[in-house]
Amino acid sequence: MAEKVHRVVFQPDGRTLFVPDGQTLLDAARAAGIHMNAPCGGKGTCTGCRIIIPLSPPPPTETCLRELSGEEIRRNLRLACQTRVRGDLRVVIPEETRLGDQKILTDGVAREIALEPNVRKVAVHLPPPAVSDQRSDADRLIDGLAEKGIDGAHIDIRIARELPERLRALDFHPAAVVIGREVVYLDRPTAADACYGIAFDVGTTTLVGYLVDLVTGRLAAVASRGNPQAAYGDDVIARIEYCGRQAGGARTLNSLVVGALNEMVAECCRKAAVKASAVYEATVVGNSTMNHLLLRLPVDGIARAPFVAAAASAHTVSARDLGLRIHPRGRVYTAPLIASFVGADTVGVILATGMHESDRLRLAIDIGTNGEIVLGTRERLLACSTAAGPAFEGARIRYGMRAATGAIDRVDMDGERLVLHTIDEAPAVGLCGTGLIDAVAALVAAGVVTPSGMMRAAADVAKRTPALARRIQGADGETGFVLAAKGETLTGHPILLTQRDVREVQLAKGAMAAGVETLLAEFGAAASDIQEVLLAGAFGNYIRPDRALAIGLLPRVPLERVKFVGNAAGVGARMMLVNCGLRRAADDVARGVEHVELSQRPDFQPRFAEAMIFPPVTL
Amino acid sequence: MAEKVHRVVFQPDGRTLFVPDGQTLLDAARAAGIHMNAPCGGKGTCTGCRIIIPLSPPPPTETCLRELSGEEIRRNLRLACQTRVRGDLRVVIPEETRLGDQKILTDGVAREIALEPNVRKVAVHLPPPAVSDQRSDADRLIDGLAEKGIDGAHIDIRIARELPERLRALDFHPAAVVIGREVVYLDRPTAADACYGIAFDVGTTTLVGYLVDLVTGRLAAVASRGNPQAAYGDDVIARIEYCGRQAGGARTLNSLVVGALNEMVAECCRKAAVKASAVYEATVVGNSTMNHLLLRLPVDGIARAPFVAAAASAHTVSARDLGLRIHPRGRVYTAPLIASFVGADTVGVILATGMHESDRLRLAIDIGTNGEIVLGTRERLLACSTAAGPAFEGARIRYGMRAATGAIDRVDMDGERLVLHTIDEAPAVGLCGTGLIDAVAALVAAGVVTPSGMMRAAADVAKRTPALARRIQGADGETGFVLAAKGETLTGHPILLTQRDVREVQLAKGAMAAGVETLLAEFGAAASDIQEVLLAGAFGNYIRPDRALAIGLLPRVPLERVKFVGNAAGVGARMMLVNCGLRRAADDVARGVEHVELSQRPDFQPRFAEAMIFPPVTL
Repeated sequence: MAEKVHRVVFQPDGRTLFVPDGQTLLDAARAAGIHMNAPCGGKGTCTGCRIIIPLSPPPPTETCLRELSGEEIRRNLRLACQTRVRGDLRVVIPEETRLGDQKILTDGVAREIALEPNVRKVAVHLPPPAVSDQRSDADRLIDGLAEKGIDGAHIDIRIARELPERLRALDFHPAAVVIGREVVYLDRPTAADACYGIAFDVGTTTLVGYLVDLVTGRLAAVASRGNPQAAYGDDVIARIEYCGRQAGGARTLNSLVVGALNEMVAECCRKAAVKASAVYEATVVGNSTMNHLLLRLPVDGIARAPFVAAAASAHTVSARDLGLRIHPRGRVYTAPLIASFVGADTVGVILATGMHESDRLRLAIDIGTNGEIVLGTRERLLACSTAAGPAFEGARIRYGMRAATGAIDRVDMDGERLVLHTIDEAPAVGLCGTGLIDAVAALVAAGVVTPSGMMRAAADVAKRTPALARRIQGADGETGFVLAAKGETLTGHPILLTQRDVREVQLAKGAMAAGVETLLAEFGAAASDIQEVLLAGAFGNYIRPDRALAIGLLPRVPLERVKFVGNAAGVGARMMLVNCGLRRAADDVARGVEHVELSQRPDFQPRFAEAMIFPPVTL
Repeated sequence: MAEKVHRVVFQPDGRTLFVPDGQTLLDAARAAGIHMNAPCGGKGTCTGCRIIIPLSPPPPTETCLRELSGEEIRRNLRLACQTRVRGDLRVVIPEETRLGDQKILTDGVAREIALEPNVRKVAVHLPPPAVSDQRSDADRLIDGLAEKGIDGAHIDIRIARELPERLRALDFHPAAVVIGREVVYLDRPTAADACYGIAFDVGTTTLVGYLVDLVTGRLAAVASRGNPQAAYGDDVIARIEYCGRQAGGARTLNSLVVGALNEMVAECCRKAAVKASAVYEATVVGNSTMNHLLLRLPVDGIARAPFVAAAASAHTVSARDLGLRIHPRGRVYTAPLIASFVGADTVGVILATGMHESDRLRLAIDIGTNGEIVLGTRERLLACSTAAGPAFEGARIRYGMRAATGAIDRVDMDGERLVLHTIDEAPAVGLCGTGLIDAVAALVAAGVVTPSGMMRAAADVAKRTPALARRIQGADGETGFVLAAKGETLTGHPILLTQRDVREVQLAKGAMAAGVETLLAEFGAAASDIQEVLLAGAFGNYIRPDRALAIGLLPRVPLERVKFVGNAAGVGARMMLVNCGLRRAADDVARGVEHVELSQRPDFQPRFAEAMIFPPVTL
């Protein structure tokens, strides 16, 4: 019995798919590699996968009717995850639904570190065998490497099997590639200085790859892109749930991230004019879920109490095992994890900022879906993770979006006049995390939002700020504040900040602030004792610190103590690539950092409740 | 176009094969797993693969005419390697052609060694995870093992992937199998004491396997069989040549030996009522060619000047990689080699006899196709290999055979009366190595053979020993001495010792003796300084030392200094299984022993020529 299929054309790029009868549009798009914004993972709750079916749209489902406005339904919007294909269709994917290129931070702190890579490529001149020198081929090579300062090299049986032929083909003058102590390949002597590594920061939202010349230590190229797993859920919990729900789900997510890493290998190699086969090692930092999905370790323990990872230590795996298309004999090093929600990315931040070697009390904050917080000195480091939620990444916010073209990323108030800035100065499409913080800070300062987070009614505001009051309106049963009117936007609908959006910001910033306060209490210090607040990660580095201080996202320290450290996790990955001694330091950090499990602390919830209040600050 | 095939019935067991037109009988038999004696590897020079074609035999080839006697041709004997199948045939394989079960030495010296196996199986009770104890599954297990005294255990990514499910299935109470520091498997706690290893002695001719209980150190079972590679050549040179000549030849030889090792695993497990999956490690000693064929390392460098092995060091390989059917996560350790013709078997002999720890000057001799000789003390050990040839294993001897049922293994002379003994006291079939030595010793003592090795004519002997003179007769153009008349043998043909056989013995014993003398000269010692002569190996242990001394195979020491050490190589393999610290000792031995390359010494040839002379000794 033949399966019934329908023809579906995706606009604007015109890709045509044949889709089995009854499949959802989200699944069909995923299968074709078209990545839609679906933070909730397809459960119909995030409304990220809005699509338009211009002609003869199917009737809206219950979920569509609940989640979309009447106007949206009339404009033929549907949720792709809720729409099953029952006939031929043309589907328009709006820009904000499409997971596009985002503004990604690829630079970070740059510490001077010694060039001591784990990969060495050494040209050796070996004396050919003679009856007076009957050393085996393997011993001959090992002795030759020892003369070049590489002691105790080891030759695996697979290399040994091809060694005699290879050594003779190269006239006993190979450029030996040694990873750690393992001889992995014999290259031509003329290729002796083609020796590269790539450092990956594997984030829930964003992937960055840094190609490094391991002969000079120089950064050769950078590539980045969104994590295509985002189509299966915006946060790690949604992705873990997807793996539990869907047979082969973990394999799908693994393939997606490996595919994206391979694209970045290819892109970096193209930019630097290097062959992928000259890349012998990759280092990886990522949170525990990203780490486990990449390594094909089971993730279900991470999301379920008592929140236990399968294997937190560093791993060294063959590139072939992971499917990473560097040299097939290459290796992948994944840095160790601290806990289920404090991953190798945090280890990278600590290494990059040198917190584990510093006498000064410092606080590092990596704001993301999970905010990781580290506090301490060389004597004692504490870390925790707070479920800040994806608000700052645009999810669960009515007109939220990622930091892509058209996102409102800055909101200033000049009297009663709103001054908006959008990424690439394009017509506004939505509101990204920094714009969200700015907007809330501005509205709190203007008295439109109370310290407890309530958006005042237009009437209450009209007396003092009539122009702002006019922007307050009902929005599907709740109060909203119009940031951009429909005439000012690309999409033709207004962009509002709603009461619920403000609550999301309160939850997010409250979680972060309560986490910081709990660590301070555990450490026995006050906010004023913090000598540096280090803002790490893709998002933290675009925040305006004064606004973050204003809404209480950051602890109350003098503004000049707030420092940006860029993509410190990625810098940590690069450091471990360039200097393998730091991998031992990473082990020490991962073991030595005290993980504070917030859910276990009776003092966390009261702090959280209190931290949701906006501080009485004027801009 | 269909291939033309013929029906061939092999007697006595009646196996029927369909053989492609033109294939040789040797190849057809090999393909069917019928192993014939073919020391030369099928070149038509050893005449080991004599078969009988009772009805309508094909005309003899040139080679058959040259190598077989007129009488043999008339009796319808042919060489299987020279006989191409052109029609249906019935083929009788005489007992001496068939590679049967041989008398194999499985016992050896037994030194007391501490039980310190590389494999440990430890039942651990782990506390289940809790929010107050969020260690990863891997760390939890590693910590639990550390409490049991196994420090720094490592969990490979493949194990880690299944660890969460496995640990929970076993209620956090696994019996962890740790090889070295690698956790390789989690068994049920009730199976905690099912932990075995198997030690292999992989000889050119003979394979022996020893199953050892690694909890108690007790020997649980022994199995042995002939090396099925023998069908492709009786000595290592013939096998290496076969690999060079025949595409896929090395793979064939590898499969044969692995298949035989697997049979021995199964046999030992059956005898000891142990599951093969409870065997976690194998140790292997073997000469360099056997080692390389087993490990699938290229062998061509071994046989060709300057005689260089691919990789002489010890290797640890997964059982799965080698196809060895112990536990699929098990490991195979192959002991290191000293040189291309002084292999890991010699390392095993040294470890087993403790030569590397002894103050007394000792000589160890392992007589085989290649005789390995070790001389020295803890201060200095010298080793060499001599191409003794396969005479003592029955090859190149007119009526030679292996030490199997019906082989004449002892020859005594009572006046002029010959007293023969055969293995299993069966009717005589041929002459094995010990019988050969005895026969030569007796004929030299009786004056039938001169000190220079010439067999006297009957007329010259008739005066003093008329009964012996009657046994001297022409044999296809050379002189021969009838050991057993045709009425006394199973085959109906007489068993003769020919002039050429005596020359083969002279070459073999000359090579051994010259090797010993060269080592003595290198060491700066005389034969009389040797405090012990250790006879090792399958053959050495059946020799009668007085006869070996009589023909000059052994250096002239008092008889009581000659000791049998049994299958010392196999004992060495067992020791390395039971005590892994000895693997470091093996590395030291392999590196520390000075290999003396006889072909490079100008003093070797004159010594060799001199050593061919029989010493003037009477029994």
